[in-house]
Amino acid sequence: MTDFIAETTDLLARTPAVLRALLIGLPEAWTNEPDAADGWRPRDVIGHLITAEQTDWMQRTRRILEQGTSVPFDRFNRHAMLERDLGVPVDRLVEQFAALRAENLAALANLVSGADLDRRGFHPALGEVTLRELLATWAVHDLDHVSQIYAGLAGSHDAEVGPWKAYLGILLRRDDPSAVPG
Amino acid sequence: MTDFIAETTDLLARTPAVLRALLIGLPEAWTNEPDAADGWRPRDVIGHLITAEQTDWMQRTRRILEQGTSVPFDRFNRHAMLERDLGVPVDRLVEQFAALRAENLAALANLVSGADLDRRGFHPALGEVTLRELLATWAVHDLDHVSQIYAGLAGSHDAEVGPWKAYLGILLRRDDPSAVPG
Repeated sequence: MTDFIAETTDLLARTPAVLRALLIGLPEAWTNEPDAADGWRPRDVIGHLITAEQTDWMQRTRRILEQGTSVPFDRFNRHAMLERDLGVPVDRLVEQFAALRAENLAALANLVSGADLDRRGFHPALGEVTLRELLATWAVHDLDHVSQIYAGLAGSHDAEVGPWKAYLGILLRRDDPSAVPG
Repeated sequence: MTDFIAETTDLLARTPAVLRALLIGLPEAWTNEPDAADGWRPRDVIGHLITAEQTDWMQRTRRILEQGTSVPFDRFNRHAMLERDLGVPVDRLVEQFAALRAENLAALANLVSGADLDRRGFHPALGEVTLRELLATWAVHDLDHVSQIYAGLAGSHDAEVGPWKAYLGILLRRDDPSAVPG
């Protein structure tokens, strides 16, 4: 493993533990509010991460290794979780995500070495991409969506902070994405 | 304890575990980049949270309970950590924060009951605020700043995701806060 692969998988391996620490058993007073960008509650975000583990990252890694740019990646359904996960408790979603992530990181470690990172695939909208870009995106996608969970959690208490809202960018940006806290 | 106090402290008690899961031992390739809003690296954000545990939340809680609106809150130094924590390893900052948070939540449980939540204090810039608003702000302030840590972590890999940046709001917003991922 190169440093890049080790460093990227180090981050990826942490996300299940972060989600457990943050969400398992957290009172619903915090978790029922959607974020402002996608309208997703924390449970929807985890569902989206589950779909990506099932149908995106490792499928695309294998496509690059096996077919290069000759067959484009399959498209990805961003909203699959909204019907699929109806009624599944959030604790179970977190554990389902954790199991899929562990499985995928084990598969990745067996499949990919540093020599593969410049190999290319073809994204149906973005064109040619490298395996290195795919793996970096996998990790930053985690950061983007965990941050989205934070935005929903904060939004649940928008009405309770009173005048302090003026200092809380995470709330101000729900109303105006370019707002700067005072 | 009312539900409000129990629910708020439930969230507050989680932040040290989240920071441990996310940051302890994380390679520096992830942690050396400042966020775009304040120019703070993850370690600076933790330092800011430490200052708030030391000089903000519980001091203001006690001020409300003991003096009401008659004596304004002391002002808070947002940048105290930049000199104070020079050279302190991030792992030690996380544990220092965890110890202060545990101590403050224990003190809060002894000091405050639901009957106190409408009691008022005086913020030097915002005017009259309630204890309920202070406690909600304490929790949302955690969410705001952990989210800021995520923004810095993502920024460290801005150059590595290639064309996928177009889909990653957490990166696009570093350049343009009102950017919408495509």
